[in-house]
Amino acid sequence: MSALLDTLRGALGAAHVLTHDDPGADLSAWEQDWRKRARGRALAVVRPGSTAEVAAVVSACAAAGVSIVPQGGNTGLVVGSVPDDTGTQVVLSLTRMNRVRAIDAANLTITVDAGCVLQAVQETAEKAGFLFPLSLAAEGSCTIGGNLATNAGGTQVLRYGNARELCLGLEVVTARGEIWHGLTGLRKDNTGYDLRDLFVGSEGTLGVITAATMKLYPLPAAQLTAWAAVPSLDAAVALLGLAHQHLGAGLTGFEVMGQFALSLVDKHFPQQRVPLWTEHPYCVLLENSDNESEEHARAQFERLLETAFENGVVSDAVVAENLAQAHALWHIRERIPLAQAEEGLNIKHDISIPVSKIPAFCAETDALLAREVPGVRLVNFGHLGDGNLHYNVQAPEGGDAKAFLQTMEERVNTLVFDAVARYDGSISAEHGVGSLKVDKLPGYKDPVALGLMRTIKQALDPHNTLNPGRVLST
Amino acid sequence: MSALLDTLRGALGAAHVLTHDDPGADLSAWEQDWRKRARGRALAVVRPGSTAEVAAVVSACAAAGVSIVPQGGNTGLVVGSVPDDTGTQVVLSLTRMNRVRAIDAANLTITVDAGCVLQAVQETAEKAGFLFPLSLAAEGSCTIGGNLATNAGGTQVLRYGNARELCLGLEVVTARGEIWHGLTGLRKDNTGYDLRDLFVGSEGTLGVITAATMKLYPLPAAQLTAWAAVPSLDAAVALLGLAHQHLGAGLTGFEVMGQFALSLVDKHFPQQRVPLWTEHPYCVLLENSDNESEEHARAQFERLLETAFENGVVSDAVVAENLAQAHALWHIRERIPLAQAEEGLNIKHDISIPVSKIPAFCAETDALLAREVPGVRLVNFGHLGDGNLHYNVQAPEGGDAKAFLQTMEERVNTLVFDAVARYDGSISAEHGVGSLKVDKLPGYKDPVALGLMRTIKQALDPHNTLNPGRVLST
Repeated sequence: MSALLDTLRGALGAAHVLTHDDPGADLSAWEQDWRKRARGRALAVVRPGSTAEVAAVVSACAAAGVSIVPQGGNTGLVVGSVPDDTGTQVVLSLTRMNRVRAIDAANLTITVDAGCVLQAVQETAEKAGFLFPLSLAAEGSCTIGGNLATNAGGTQVLRYGNARELCLGLEVVTARGEIWHGLTGLRKDNTGYDLRDLFVGSEGTLGVITAATMKLYPLPAAQLTAWAAVPSLDAAVALLGLAHQHLGAGLTGFEVMGQFALSLVDKHFPQQRVPLWTEHPYCVLLENSDNESEEHARAQFERLLETAFENGVVSDAVVAENLAQAHALWHIRERIPLAQAEEGLNIKHDISIPVSKIPAFCAETDALLAREVPGVRLVNFGHLGDGNLHYNVQAPEGGDAKAFLQTMEERVNTLVFDAVARYDGSISAEHGVGSLKVDKLPGYKDPVALGLMRTIKQALDPHNTLNPGRVLST
Repeated sequence: MSALLDTLRGALGAAHVLTHDDPGADLSAWEQDWRKRARGRALAVVRPGSTAEVAAVVSACAAAGVSIVPQGGNTGLVVGSVPDDTGTQVVLSLTRMNRVRAIDAANLTITVDAGCVLQAVQETAEKAGFLFPLSLAAEGSCTIGGNLATNAGGTQVLRYGNARELCLGLEVVTARGEIWHGLTGLRKDNTGYDLRDLFVGSEGTLGVITAATMKLYPLPAAQLTAWAAVPSLDAAVALLGLAHQHLGAGLTGFEVMGQFALSLVDKHFPQQRVPLWTEHPYCVLLENSDNESEEHARAQFERLLETAFENGVVSDAVVAENLAQAHALWHIRERIPLAQAEEGLNIKHDISIPVSKIPAFCAETDALLAREVPGVRLVNFGHLGDGNLHYNVQAPEGGDAKAFLQTMEERVNTLVFDAVARYDGSISAEHGVGSLKVDKLPGYKDPVALGLMRTIKQALDPHNTLNPGRVLST
């Protein structure tokens, strides 16, 4: 291995090859996952500064038979970007590659290095007068390369799509250490297979994304936020349909929050002043982005809510009067995971279900869990507009949450995932597979799809150099 | 081969296996391509009625070492869906599979057999109160399976994307004759590699698409069409930027038409009454889809055009007063290819360029062709909003067009494609590769991308059963 380390130091400079043998070495930032579910041990952490250096790292590791774990901001939720505990893997961190390469205003595109932090991309776009719509909780730390490798979702998917839909072109280092120069800004290009989307969402198992060309949008003239209490999940789904009709593409956010989820925010962040939650089973957060004016957005919201009241799908509602109020409402939504953490350990799910089937899925699964897991408390919230629920399970009140997780996590996962399968859903909507769900996948994924995935992995990375054991078990 | 034919007759019924030995056989509908550029000869044309029958056909042909040409409406423009002339290939026609399987209103999805004609999908969606936005010239004959296999574009891509972006799930028969059940209606599903987008746009070379789940949208409350004369292509690009700003997602069409293209419509369809073309180098067709009302759409259009006049990017403009006028304006745009055909043989290009580079590309390439090809006449029009031009070359006036094509087509293609490459464009924006451009591809595609494509083809279809020689040369 020391020969490999020498090669890497020669290619990158010794300062950018970190090992446990370095004086005062602390590699925990690269070895510990975001949710602190797994701690690995790396042979080395390498920090290339250019695409050519990434290619050199991949070539050297492949030649030495050493596997690579590509890493961006290391904020993933499924243990996909930290090394295993063998001390034999090289972590390839992209964070030194953080240049904005170009903005093309007339073409509505921005080209960035993979290591650019999402928030920096958002801010660069806004300074140039454009919207880069990908937005998620970790945006201050996660990188665009990681967003693409995991096909990240977030709060604006309803209108703008996942990371995949925002991407036009990629630069990728293949498992053979070759560079694919695919940084196109074209909206239409039918010259062969869609390699871009094969790499997007492959979690670093097929290639290392080193740069991307992403779509920009005009900045909306106004963004308005409303908070509506609904009598049921059925009503929430009906409200979504009305919102699509009334707001069209102006509907940029539609988040649902169950009463217990909101009660936790109220309990742990009392200064938040959660509206309308005490009397209603669910609240919905709606966002209307308007290319005309705030007045127009407000008038549209009022017409929508009027119709919704008349149809009985909304019980009560408030529209934010100003930006501060809008931020406060979004803040409540964003506080739910933090309130959950304050309440104690819990089991997280990131599932999707066809929107039409969500009410029946929740009715059945709520009842099932209540029956099978005495005292269970459901923290149900998420991006209803995308059919994506964070259907989380909090340990029973007052009990030993750690013991609950140890004994019940597997059982709860099985109950929830089996229900998801019955309702044609997905056991990972926006977080990916990583190593956390890799053993679950064969139970829920179409076997022909799994076979095709294995064939592709074998063809593109025959020596299993890139992120082995993630997405597909080894 | 007669053993294979017996097997196919056994699986599908003799009535659905057509051969040249049948009494009065005429297979020209399946053997002749749409543009009449190639006439093949099939061993047989098979017309399965179910996905299981498609799987049986693929398995039987693979076992017999016979290759398959999947075919939908056979309206492709790059000779990708007719057999070669060896008489050894089986044409697999999907047109008997034309059921709408389901509409899910709350989930905004429609699931259809691959053989459904595009217009039938549009009409079914509209009857249910929704928009299915894929729209292109051949919509009365082309099928959704063919649209997906070629990642079709059309006139609404600016807002709704190509066929790829409209697709959520697929059912596919693989080269091994297995069925992948991937008909999901989920907006978010991060459980592994993106197989859907690998099959979409692969032109039947990796699998046979048998059904798809597609996105629906709310029907707009109003659609308004405007026709603007612009002083230059630079002005057209500036107008596009203003239209994005003013109309946001309401901007559903932005087509550019050069003066010579419009002169051909005026010449061959004098009853069309083409507005504003005589005094201006380019005209632009804009469409504004509004979820509110016609009045609102009109007010928005007026504000946009006012700003455009003030900025000098529009010289003159008319807004259609009613649906009939709007249709008449679109009709002019759609007549351009027909007017070209009336004028005589011509060389077609379907190219894309980053929008920002289109004016410079056209200035350089117009001058280059004028210099290199004396008397050349450029019919330049297309989907400027997507950076997609049909940059076509009409033979010199009065000359022998057939002789011109014979001597000049290769040279003209090289001049245009080389220019496209210099401006970071694509030599096939929406039509695909087929066999027409398969030999061109290696000259213009990134070699690493081509290598990855070959690796994938080899892995998924090792015996080259599916549409050999298309997309990738054999």
